[in-house]
This record gives sequence, structure tokens and C-alpha cells, in this order.
Amino acid sequence: MKLTILKDQLNESIQHVSKAISSKTTIPILTGIKIDATSEGVTLTASDTDISIQSFMPTETAELKVIELFQPGSVVLPAKFFMEMIRKLPSQTIEIEVKDHFQTTIRSGSSEVQIMGLDPEEYPLLPQIEESRTIRIPSDLLKTMIKQTSFSVSTNETTPILTGVLWQISDNKLKFIACDRHRLASREINLDLEPGQKFHPIVISGRTLNELSKILPDQNSLIDIVIADNQVLFKMNSILFYTRILDGTYPDTSKLIPQSFQTELVVGTKELADAIDRAYLLSREDKTNIVKLVMKEDETIEVSSSSTELGKVTEQLQLQKINGELLRISFNSKYMLDALKVMDSDHIHIGFTGAMQPIIIRPEEQQNILQLILPYRTTN
Amino acid sequence: MKLTILKDQLNESIQHVSKAISSKTTIPILTGIKIDATSEGVTLTASDTDISIQSFMPTETAELKVIELFQPGSVVLPAKFFMEMIRKLPSQTIEIEVKDHFQTTIRSGSSEVQIMGLDPEEYPLLPQIEESRTIRIPSDLLKTMIKQTSFSVSTNETTPILTGVLWQISDNKLKFIACDRHRLASREINLDLEPGQKFHPIVISGRTLNELSKILPDQNSLIDIVIADNQVLFKMNSILFYTRILDGTYPDTSKLIPQSFQTELVVGTKELADAIDRAYLLSREDKTNIVKLVMKEDETIEVSSSSTELGKVTEQLQLQKINGELLRISFNSKYMLDALKVMDSDHIHIGFTGAMQPIIIRPEEQQNILQLILPYRTTN
Repeated sequence: MKLTILKDQLNESIQHVSKAISSKTTIPILTGIKIDATSEGVTLTASDTDISIQSFMPTETAELKVIELFQPGSVVLPAKFFMEMIRKLPSQTIEIEVKDHFQTTIRSGSSEVQIMGLDPEEYPLLPQIEESRTIRIPSDLLKTMIKQTSFSVSTNETTPILTGVLWQISDNKLKFIACDRHRLASREINLDLEPGQKFHPIVISGRTLNELSKILPDQNSLIDIVIADNQVLFKMNSILFYTRILDGTYPDTSKLIPQSFQTELVVGTKELADAIDRAYLLSREDKTNIVKLVMKEDETIEVSSSSTELGKVTEQLQLQKINGELLRISFNSKYMLDALKVMDSDHIHIGFTGAMQPIIIRPEEQQNILQLILPYRTTN
Repeated sequence: MKLTILKDQLNESIQHVSKAISSKTTIPILTGIKIDATSEGVTLTASDTDISIQSFMPTETAELKVIELFQPGSVVLPAKFFMEMIRKLPSQTIEIEVKDHFQTTIRSGSSEVQIMGLDPEEYPLLPQIEESRTIRIPSDLLKTMIKQTSFSVSTNETTPILTGVLWQISDNKLKFIACDRHRLASREINLDLEPGQKFHPIVISGRTLNELSKILPDQNSLIDIVIADNQVLFKMNSILFYTRILDGTYPDTSKLIPQSFQTELVVGTKELADAIDRAYLLSREDKTNIVKLVMKEDETIEVSSSSTELGKVTEQLQLQKINGELLRISFNSKYMLDALKVMDSDHIHIGFTGAMQPIIIRPEEQQNILQLILPYRTTN
């Protein structure tokens, strides 16, 4: 293999695939990035077995000749060193030449770097994906859905299925659900499915979706998502992002969500978030994060928390609306803050069915986002 | 004590004193910030016994009424919580009221915070400093001197004196020296001393000087530095920064610096730094950081490093000038990078007196900065 390639394009491509490199891998070849050079262009591949990312640079773009190929070929280079070295090379043009035993020379300006490459034949093959079942989502909408749900996945590896986000695809709707036994986040969108297409529910690791989110383009391009039996493939412009589907059955969470409320209120999202944020400062000192909410006769709520060591915070908030019985309820301030942060609405609707029943938070005028928090049992 | 105070001014003042708060203190009251309110203004004090910082907010500035005082007094409040809470309060006006047993109430908008305060009488007194010996330095010049030397202090606590920067004041000059047995950094400036003033050399902790640097104003104001027997006081506009002088005698480093050179060269600072930075990427893999420099007949140098696992980096650099014997010399690439980063000159002069003798780096046209690096003994 021998070629020259432009530094900025190579750098960008390396950045994309680097999300799949784990420093903890037990498979030595996976600490590397695979480079394949053909007359069409150069493909980089990285994988940590859970995620695999492939980024393709065409030989020419509309404006620019990116690659000059002298001899096609492949090599695997140590990812961390390759990544840092390319970024620091002095010239815009980088020459990469692979000789016997995958001895690789990188030249740029007056720098010459010799790297011991690895045999690309030893690099695991990417999953074969059958393209029959595909859905298409705008990039920024997918990003928003991930942001609004993935923070609620469980971090406890004893129930692996709960570390993922459930995708339910049916009736021309796509719904994400994440739940860690203390809280639940869900987001639903409309989807145009091809007639007759059927999808089983799938579960994708929350951590993986967060990595995907970093690569998803900001411009509103469309992402093709190919769903196979064990794998999902996200197809972006020049990037392929493969991830495995988590094994197991996701618990039925629909029973958790009350159909009617004993008490309902509407309050400013930012006002409530700020008040809880201040209460959180105290509540975290006792490591409980407990905040208490008391509804008053005068259409206000009092948000408070206290720490035996430090003191007490009390906040009065004006409500926009309240119906039903006045309750006193305690909950985890951190969970409430997480839920409020992803609400894209000025006012939120909170529904209660009793001091020990789930708290349901929704945007005031929409039904497509739902956040659920279980309250704390407290003595006062 | 009872007063109202503007949030932004209080915040800024808290930020300044917070540099003196250590989370590791064994003296409980020092986890707090002391607040003293008089008719002139409000003073905040924080201390970790090594450093003490006092920040004063006057009742009124030329443009603004900052404080309204209803009752003078003092209290000590838990620093971390106080700091974070003030930042998050909803209104620009903050009311602070201290009642019996230092029970403190902070009100802002619809928030009310109760904090258990501590008795200010238990707070240690600040050092009494006699103002007889004072020097005056422009703020940005002091910052530069700290940046150009403090990175070379020792991090090894077994020789505490070497964790400090030596200040030599004599003949209307101020010189900083830092040395960790492997390298030395020094910077000298001219100083107008009052006739007859004499100063002993003093040593101030490098860590402390870095903390001071963060508070020093960016505008070119003058800093008064009062030097007492055990303490130094830095007087900024509204801030007093106290630090103790390290005990012990600083070793005589003047013998380390060669008076003449066997080989001298002049090279572009950035070109050399970039080349060494790339070599550093490889050298650090073997944890030695060794980089080799070989001088060639054609007025170039070759910078190289190698790692048994990864490979080799080789760089050719054109010199501006070279005199004397052509040497091969090895050194720590990280130390060289640190030294080159603080050179404010496009070209540097490097002097050698042999492959095993100190390397001396200076700006090409100035004598006021000197960096010394001991070379490595290598086998090839």
C-alpha cells in the first residue's frame, strides 16, 4: 500500500472511528485502526466488538483531490499513536507507505515516522447485515431522542437489559424507553414505515447510543437504520456505525404509568429546575438527594431540602395551574433535574396519584415525551 | 450581622478567596469562608494555613451601591456550599442575616437558605506583616515570571525547599530560580529598589505562585509585594494574598551553569518544539521520554526517538547558525518541551559543553531567561 492523503480529511475520519476504540480490549488487534486503500478511496475501521465504526474517504470530492493512490493495500496501525501523530504532522500532505511485514512509513514535511503495522487479515470481519428492514430518521431528531432517554438507563450491570434503550417500532411510530427501576424516560415520534414491514422490539446499549450521538451530523440529514437479527447498522453520509442488539427481554413498563391522576399541576420548567437545583446542593450533602415538594392552598408549591450538618433550603414557586388534592411528596432531586433538563417546553405538566405513586412529567402541550420518577418514602 | 449585597460582586469576591480553600484541611473552621461586615464594606477571608486570601468589597463603587448594611458583624460559612449556592441564587440582590448561635439566613427572590454558621472568633488571625520591605512589579510581568519558572520546581516532598521558587533580590534586579535536580529555569528582571533596602533570598512554594497567578489581574496594574521574615504579602487592588516563606536554604545553583560552550546553535523555537512534540509521542510509550539530537555537517539537526513496541520518529531541522563541535546528545523530551513553551522569542540559542554536560537554552537575543536541562546518558 502506498498513497498520499490530505491531513484534515484523514484527521476527521480518524476522529469518527476513534469512538469505537476501547483501551480495555483484550484483543490486541482491536487497539488498532484498520486502513484499506482502493482506487475508490480509503476506508478506516475501528471496533471494540460491541461497536464497529467504518469511515470512508473518497479519492476525490467535488472540490478536492483527497487521495493519490500509488498502490492499493491494507494495514492495521496502533490507534492512539496513529491518531495523535497524524494530528501533529507538519504538512497538509501525508504519505503512507506499507512495506514487508506491514512496516509502515509515514512522511510529512521533514518528519518521517516508522510504525510497526499489524496484519489486516487478522482483523475481525464486520457483521454481515441483510438490508431488508430499514427505518429512516432525521439526524437531529435521533440525537434529541437519545438525549431525552439515555440518561435513564441503568448503570448496574447485574441486569444488562436495563443498561439499554428499548426501541418499539409499530403503527408507524418509533418509541424509545429507558428505565433503571427508579425512573423511566420515554420519547415517541411518527415514522413512515413501508407497508407490511414488521419489527420486533430491540434494545441498544445507552452508552453506545451516546457514542453514536457524538458522530451524528448536526445538519438535518437523514440516517438509515438497518435492523438485523443481532445487529443494528446506522448509515450516515460516509460513516457506517454497527452495534449489537442486547440479549434478553425488556420488562413491560406500561403498567408503571398511571392512566389518571389524583393531582395535576402546571409549572414553569426553568423556574422549577432552578429551585430544585438549589435544593439539590443541600440534599446531596447527605448523599440522599431528597427534596420535598409541598402543595399549598394559594396555588404555590414549596420546594425544600435539609441537611443535618449544613442547614435548610426553602423555595416558593407560583404554579400556573393546579387540580386535585394537595399532596406532600419527596423525591430524588438529581432524577428530577435530569428529567427537567431534557424538556423542550416552557411549561410542564406533572401528574401525581398519591405520595407513594409514580410522578409523571410531560411537556404542557405534548404527549410524546414522558418522564417518570418514583417518590421516596419519608417519615415527615 | 445583616446586609444586602449584589450577587455578581459577591460571586467574584468568593472566587478570589476560594483559591485558598483546601478540601484536605484538618482544621474544621478552615473549610469555611469568614465574612466581616463593617460600614466600609464586606471582607471575605479564606485560608489553608499556607495561603491566606482576603478580598474586600467596598460599600459603594464609583458606579454602584454594592452593599446596604443594616447591622455590622461577622460569621464563618461553609465555603463549598456557600460558593455554589450564591452562584445559583435567583435574584441580583442577596440578603444575609446572622442571628443567635451564628444561624445564618440567606434570602434571594423566593429562595430562603438557612446555614449553620461558625463562630468567627475561632477563625485564625492573619499574619501581622511589617511593611518595611516592599517591592513593586507589574502584574503581567509577575505572571510571566511565574509561568517561565514554576514548572521546574520539584514535586518531590522529600526536599521541600526545591518545591519552591527562589527569589533573589539584589543590585536592582529580581531573579526567580526553580530547579528539580534534572532541570533549572530562571528569569531575571530589573527592579527599582529604594536606596538602602536589603533583601535576603526567599523561597515561595511553586504551587502557591501558580494559585497567585490565577488571581493576578490581567490589566497591567502594579502589585506591591511586602516581604517579612516568614511571610510574603501580595497586595492587589482589593485583594490581599498571604503566603509563608519556605524554611531552609536553597542550594547554590550558579555552579551548574557553564560559562562558555563547546557548541552553540540557533534554531526556530516553534520548529524545534513541534519536532520534539512528535518525538515525544513515541518516547513516552517507553516511559523514558528520551529524544536524541544529532548535529550534522550541513547545518541541520536530526531529532529522533524510538520505541521498541511502536517504531521510530525522525525529523530533519534546518539551523539558523551553528558553531563548534558536532555533538550527539540525548535528553528528556518532556523537559525540553516545557522549556521551549515558555520562550517568548522566535529563535532560541542552545549551548552545549559536551554530551554529558548541561544543555542551556536562552532566547536568541536576550540573557534574562535561562533554561537548563541535564542530558541523559545513553548507550548509542
